[in-house]
Amino acid sequence: MAGPIVLLTDFGDRDGYAGTLRGVVLGINPGATLVDLSHRIPPQDVAAGAFVLGTSYRYFPDGAVFVAVVDPGVGSARRAIALESSRYTFVGPDNGLFSLVLADLGIVSPVGGSVSLAGAAVTGVALENPAYFLATVSATFHGRDVFAPVAAHRSLGVPLAAFGPPIAEVVSLPTHRPVWQNGVLIGQVIYVDRFGNAITDLTRADLNGFTAPVVEVAGLRILGLRQHYAGGSGLLALIGSSDRLEIALNGGSAATEFGLGPGTPVVVAEASLS
Amino acid sequence: MAGPIVLLTDFGDRDGYAGTLRGVVLGINPGATLVDLSHRIPPQDVAAGAFVLGTSYRYFPDGAVFVAVVDPGVGSARRAIALESSRYTFVGPDNGLFSLVLADLGIVSPVGGSVSLAGAAVTGVALENPAYFLATVSATFHGRDVFAPVAAHRSLGVPLAAFGPPIAEVVSLPTHRPVWQNGVLIGQVIYVDRFGNAITDLTRADLNGFTAPVVEVAGLRILGLRQHYAGGSGLLALIGSSDRLEIALNGGSAATEFGLGPGTPVVVAEASLS
Amino acid sequence: MAGPIVLLTDFGDRDGYAGTLRGVVLGINPGATLVDLSHRIPPQDVAAGAFVLGTSYRYFPDGAVFVAVVDPGVGSARRAIALESSRYTFVGPDNGLFSLVLADLGIVSPVGGSVSLAGAAVTGVALENPAYFLATVSATFHGRDVFAPVAAHRSLGVPLAAFGPPIAEVVSLPTHRPVWQNGVLIGQVIYVDRFGNAITDLTRADLNGFTAPVVEVAGLRILGLRQHYAGGSGLLALIGSSDRLEIALNGGSAATEFGLGPGTPVVVAEASLS
Repeated sequence: MAGPIVLLTDFGDRDGYAGTLRGVVLGINPGATLVDLSHRIPPQDVAAGAFVLGTSYRYFPDGAVFVAVVDPGVGSARRAIALESSRYTFVGPDNGLFSLVLADLGIVSPVGGSVSLAGAAVTGVALENPAYFLATVSATFHGRDVFAPVAAHRSLGVPLAAFGPPIAEVVSLPTHRPVWQNGVLIGQVIYVDRFGNAITDLTRADLNGFTAPVVEVAGLRILGLRQHYAGGSGLLALIGSSDRLEIALNGGSAATEFGLGPGTPVVVAEASLS
Repeated sequence: MAGPIVLLTDFGDRDGYAGTLRGVVLGINPGATLVDLSHRIPPQDVAAGAFVLGTSYRYFPDGAVFVAVVDPGVGSARRAIALESSRYTFVGPDNGLFSLVLADLGIVSPVGGSVSLAGAAVTGVALENPAYFLATVSATFHGRDVFAPVAAHRSLGVPLAAFGPPIAEVVSLPTHRPVWQNGVLIGQVIYVDRFGNAITDLTRADLNGFTAPVVEVAGLRILGLRQHYAGGSGLLALIGSSDRLEIALNGGSAATEFGLGPGTPVVVAEASLS
Repeated sequence: MAGPIVLLTDFGDRDGYAGTLRGVVLGINPGATLVDLSHRIPPQDVAAGAFVLGTSYRYFPDGAVFVAVVDPGVGSARRAIALESSRYTFVGPDNGLFSLVLADLGIVSPVGGSVSLAGAAVTGVALENPAYFLATVSATFHGRDVFAPVAAHRSLGVPLAAFGPPIAEVVSLPTHRPVWQNGVLIGQVIYVDRFGNAITDLTRADLNGFTAPVVEVAGLRILGLRQHYAGGSGLLALIGSSDRLEIALNGGSAATEFGLGPGTPVVVAEASLS
């Protein structure tokens, strides 16, 4: 059985844009299994889209085809691409939306920009073959006219090479990684979820080196890591479901109450040092 | 293969109303392919529902059955209807929700109200046969009790005539069309999407007559049409994905920043005249 | 054909949490029919989740497997459970989320807390067999790691007993029921829907005893019950689609305009008494 076609966009679910993608897919592959990953990525927020895709895609079955469209540059010179790993196909604009997926494949870029696919377990093509697009391609809705049709054809077994010429590089966002400075580890918030949990770039592995970690954020100090959200009061620090350090507030929104957002510094120190 | 059942409502996705429609459909046709077009039409905003349906339906495969429920008059004298074109079936209240679909079939009404189906490539019935409803029909949730069941039976091959007597007229909203006045073309905003793009009743064809169009909106003048949203600053005018003139703001919401909404006048003139 | 897997959560549809559930289910049962009941239960609002589930589940076909995750106690001592009635399976945390379903099966609890399953047409197990979980179970996302996998295995025919030991009691929320006092019936608002309709714990059966009911709410008196939302002005009272008394405002939000919410008292009296 072919894998599902998984949709991630910033289209919202009000205007019919996401629904139209579904119609286009079913017009090409009536038996497709359509799955929504998210349509409420904040408008044009490529980094948020990359985070949601990057923390979720590995839970989908082999053969899944991801259509990711957060695309402020639609119609401009930015390329349309498809990437293929051993398990999945990814279709969307070449604007960094696949950065976290690429990081899992060993392709990282501290400063962002164009990165090489050489040596990585992924191949890519530029989507240039109009035989797999809708008959009319608008300048402003490539999700409908290019990405959804290509994904639908891919789910029917069309090989990646049919969609266009191979590419050697893709665009990556800067890869956020914490840094050591004066004996403490300095990271930052990279995403705030619906519950107001502030998720950081500090991973479980980063924290493993600490015996008794103290987390400093928004001028407050949090002693030790919790196992889960329940119980306690005030700010909590814990390793969340994406294996990253999260700052949470039991029964409330840590982000709203304490003004946390992407870029907010989060410092981890040994208790004995502070 | 039978076409998908496509849902468009103002139920939101919080209360379980839309989910209940899905349950009812699957109870009648367990093999149905259910697709959401939108459940976030603003509450009771028939015109917005008509716009979203009218700009999206043609991207669905032949045989699709659309269930459209924006229904402030549920339980009152307004009829429940089903319409059938050569490609699709539409099920919902007779309150103008299908106006843009009907306009594509040549049925237009400048002032709105009851319009004749005579001569158009569409047939209609009033939903009056309770054999195809749920056993108990509430006064307030015909989406669940009438429209979803009828659509499910239709997707199983029940012919339109089984659902009730033929109808000769349906209700249409007033069809917005721009007018010429003193050498300029005066249209209006008819929909604002999630990105804050203000979509007008001025079509690509309407604009074709201009050599160097100047768009006037909210006291501002926009020189020329752009090809896409990317680049530039300030208000942009472009032909959007529904082949209508849109007013957009790169990286922001044109509607919010400039106070645009349904009914806001948009004037197009030749640059040489202004 | 196996029944659908129906998802109800407070995950929202922005962060990919709900989408990840879908991926996990399809990884275990690629042929599953996935249906969303709601993902926008207010964060951690178990009572709202119980209401939406309890008013919707009976519209799904036999064999449906419900995954319900509103789970502020995730990772703490609260149990993970599955319940099976003659028609359905319910999977989720043991925190009262299934209270309205249990009430339909005759299990009610005026004060809430632990209630016995003895004698009721439902069996339950504690989810303790990790063979049916994801390989790694996080402390904070049992929806992904425990509940979705169990539901997927259940939809493939795994019997309930395989998931863990039988349980004799489950947690219930307090069952809201109106009370008679000084000749009037005093109930309360228990849910506010997207349209601003305030739904009460007063059922159609409760109202049957009144000849000419007068509804008092927010200091206002509403004479008689309406049949539907259309027509009239000011506050309306009617029996809504869940067979409960609702307070509505034609063309507006009764809850917002009159400050109604869960707990707001609603009194019903005979017109002749007032």
